[in-house]
Amino acid sequence: MKLEGVSRRSIARTADRRGAAILDQRKLPWEILWVELRSADEAATAIRDMWTRGAPLIGATAAYGLAMALAEDGTSLDAAHAMLLETRPTAVNLRWALDDVAAAVRALPPEERGAAAFARADAICDEDAAACRAIGVHGLELLKDLHARHPNRPLNILTHCNAGWLATVDYGTATAPIYLAHDAGIPVHVWVDETRPRNQGALLTAFELAGHGVPHTVIADNTGGLLMQRGQVDAVIVGTDRVTANGDVCNKIGTYLKALAAHDNGVPFYVALPFTTFDPATASGDFVPIEERDPDELALLTGPAAEGMATVRVTASPAYNPAFDVTPARLVTAYVTERGVLPLSRLVRSS
Amino acid sequence: MKLEGVSRRSIARTADRRGAAILDQRKLPWEILWVELRSADEAATAIRDMWTRGAPLIGATAAYGLAMALAEDGTSLDAAHAMLLETRPTAVNLRWALDDVAAAVRALPPEERGAAAFARADAICDEDAAACRAIGVHGLELLKDLHARHPNRPLNILTHCNAGWLATVDYGTATAPIYLAHDAGIPVHVWVDETRPRNQGALLTAFELAGHGVPHTVIADNTGGLLMQRGQVDAVIVGTDRVTANGDVCNKIGTYLKALAAHDNGVPFYVALPFTTFDPATASGDFVPIEERDPDELALLTGPAAEGMATVRVTASPAYNPAFDVTPARLVTAYVTERGVLPLSRLVRSS
Repeated sequence: MKLEGVSRRSIARTADRRGAAILDQRKLPWEILWVELRSADEAATAIRDMWTRGAPLIGATAAYGLAMALAEDGTSLDAAHAMLLETRPTAVNLRWALDDVAAAVRALPPEERGAAAFARADAICDEDAAACRAIGVHGLELLKDLHARHPNRPLNILTHCNAGWLATVDYGTATAPIYLAHDAGIPVHVWVDETRPRNQGALLTAFELAGHGVPHTVIADNTGGLLMQRGQVDAVIVGTDRVTANGDVCNKIGTYLKALAAHDNGVPFYVALPFTTFDPATASGDFVPIEERDPDELALLTGPAAEGMATVRVTASPAYNPAFDVTPARLVTAYVTERGVLPLSRLVRSS
Repeated sequence: MKLEGVSRRSIARTADRRGAAILDQRKLPWEILWVELRSADEAATAIRDMWTRGAPLIGATAAYGLAMALAEDGTSLDAAHAMLLETRPTAVNLRWALDDVAAAVRALPPEERGAAAFARADAICDEDAAACRAIGVHGLELLKDLHARHPNRPLNILTHCNAGWLATVDYGTATAPIYLAHDAGIPVHVWVDETRPRNQGALLTAFELAGHGVPHTVIADNTGGLLMQRGQVDAVIVGTDRVTANGDVCNKIGTYLKALAAHDNGVPFYVALPFTTFDPATASGDFVPIEERDPDELALLTGPAAEGMATVRVTASPAYNPAFDVTPARLVTAYVTERGVLPLSRLVRSS
């Protein structure tokens, strides 16, 4: 997607083709800093310390990290794989990407593994971008239909958290239909949930949309219900960390509340996902463990102040910070995947 | 309620009985600063600049302001009334309190009006505290019943925004049952919604509860749905700015989302209000105008930083900040009033 007028991916090989460049997402939107990762250790640090984030992007970063290790020492496959896997042990895509690269190179002589691993990492990125673009193509049809109902006003989409190109390689999942609609000339406007406590909406999604020129407005997480009651939301589109066998959607905390409001007001609630995010081995959301994160993510907030960045305290009281919730399948209008817009029955059958 | 171990009201006459002392609520919870208002102009500034807030407390502050004006010049009744009314033109309680004091003194000779107005302002405060306490007494019965279902664990109440003693004269509305339950030895724990964008929950409600010794935890506004899904909320209790003839509840933005989650999970959703907040002249929430406030309330956040207070930017994008939403009556379990816990039919009949 576009950033400062230039089409970019969130990860790409460096000019000399021996490293990978990523955005330091901790600094966004206040500073646009591209970092060149030059070793598996640097890739591991970028993942562990969350310079980079989003399941597909973490996988791609790890894949390049493994390629860098193998380019330096073709016998380091198992050690580098283990080292990179440890950076975010619960990230499913991380393991998948590392295993994928390892499988592609294990049979090769050590001196050929580096180049082959880089090629495989490139392919992982291309495949992810293609899957996201396909999600966008299918989602675009939905948005065209919604826009046709009210052709004389902007199409209002609400999204929660960041399931954008900053979390994938390009296009994003929830944002892909939005970007394609915008590029197709549909007058899209996006309501961006702030997404407390880490504010990925106010910081990252808003930054993405601004970079690509998509009109948008940041709202408090409390606001979407009112907007839906008033008819100011034509559709909700969110990404997901995991969809279970029964269609339950594990996503950023607060997604469930927006799904309830959408249901109560007859607003379509779409979940955008690549098939890799569908987890038929888990029966329902009841079996998904909810990560509990540091309460200081809620109790402290960092941003630009009068003199440089500052961190302010938000409350003097104890805080609690679960990161995800589960939206029951009954509240989901459809799943927007790279294979099409599917109701639950077809999602399950297609997997 | 208790603050630093001492029982206080949010407004009280000064020691010399010629002014009124209030907390500067803009500084809470970081600084506890009592301010002595000594003239109608000072009372007007305190209301206009939101040192003081909450409909009943604004009314009480205005009543004392009018009394101070009349104590200085008994002929200033109409001018002072108009000046004070202008400070927050949409506040219903403000007009009501000013009219009440004016009616009590208009027939008196100018030199007697000051003392009579102070007496009437005192009575307004006492009546408000008594009404809130009565809300608490009736709500306490509900909480006792809920606690009896799970006597071996704390009773978990979720509340949104601040409908506490800082917004009234004492006890609060939504908090009154909580304080009385705590004082009665019921092990209450309160989930305090942060309440973006102005964070009245994280700042004021948490501060109140801490002052009175009530266990509580601040959560992001996104979190209540998950907690209700998990059975970690026994009841939601909120205050309200206005209940319309059909029982719709106008309250801080985000209340509707919690009501939806409560309904979806079989959690009782109680609205605490004095009868003065019931507005039978407005047919439904569809007719309540929603105040739209400065987007910077969302885009900027002030709190203590490493070196004194700092204001940080939360987003670089445009923001939208409607202050209230409307919770449909169908989502309300009951209305907790000073006359008892009423279903909608009795609320309407009792008015």
